Amino acid sequence: MVKRTRFDDESCPVARSVDVVGDWWSLLIVRDAFDGSHRFGDFQRSLGVAKNILSTRLRALEDNGILEHHGRDYTLTAKGEALFPVIVALRQWGEAFAFEPGEPHSQLLDRRHHQPLKPLEIHAADGRRVTSGDTEVRKVP
Amino acid sequence: MVKRTRFDDESCPVARSVDVVGDWWSLLIVRDAFDGSHRFGDFQRSLGVAKNILSTRLRALEDNGILEHHGRDYTLTAKGEALFPVIVALRQWGEAFAFEPGEPHSQLLDRRHHQPLKPLEIHAADGRRVTSGDTEVRKVP
Repeated sequence: MVKRTRFDDESCPVARSVDVVGDWWSLLIVRDAFDGSHRFGDFQRSLGVAKNILSTRLRALEDNGILEHHGRDYTLTAKGEALFPVIVALRQWGEAFAFEPGEPHSQLLDRRHHQPLKPLEIHAADGRRVTSGDTEVRKVP
Repeated sequence: MVKRTRFDDESCPVARSVDVVGDWWSLLIVRDAFDGSHRFGDFQRSLGVAKNILSTRLRALEDNGILEHHGRDYTLTAKGEALFPVIVALRQWGEAFAFEPGEPHSQLLDRRHHQPLKPLEIHAADGRRVTSGDTEVRKVP
């Protein structure tokens, strides 16, 4: 294993999140948990990774409070459930930019009307829609 | 370098995004670009990684159409700018879950009123606010 650069001593919440989630593809475990995977075998079939690597990632997600397991069932904790906007944001970006026109891909639908969700929008506290150019980072002194 | 598992043959947009962005911490390069970093030295000071590793990551982000450079300036493409919701989602999750109470962290503010942004909400196409439990994934056959 390559030693991963750690950013968790930083004061930036983005860097902290990157560290707490761990590996990039651990997000795909989280995605699978949202999509109904509960058992080790579910994750393994979906991700096609070696058992020992999957075990390590599942344990790291548990250690970081994102997953918990009861018996043989893995479920998202509240902290894990709170990653839903991250998954939705990645999904919508992927849909927009990572497929050829007409190339088939899975879709996340509203269960009631079976329609794709609304694209994420960023709003200021007063409700105005903002883009990155309307924002600024206040650094910690 | 460890061979990274590739998921880009999948039909899942989340997996595609993970692959297109590349390494997990490449998102921190994207974050820095949103925060005003343009030069190699800016990224290096912010991230504290070895020059050769940073070069490789910058080149991968360029190859994948997320960054472009003109002379010595790196800027986000439209595709890169579209990652803003991903960065905001990670930031808000980190603020909520990855710091001790009272521990200082940087903040993303609305430039007009200098207030933190509104927490991201997920909405169905008809405007209803939904949680992960209100959604389902339609797999590609």
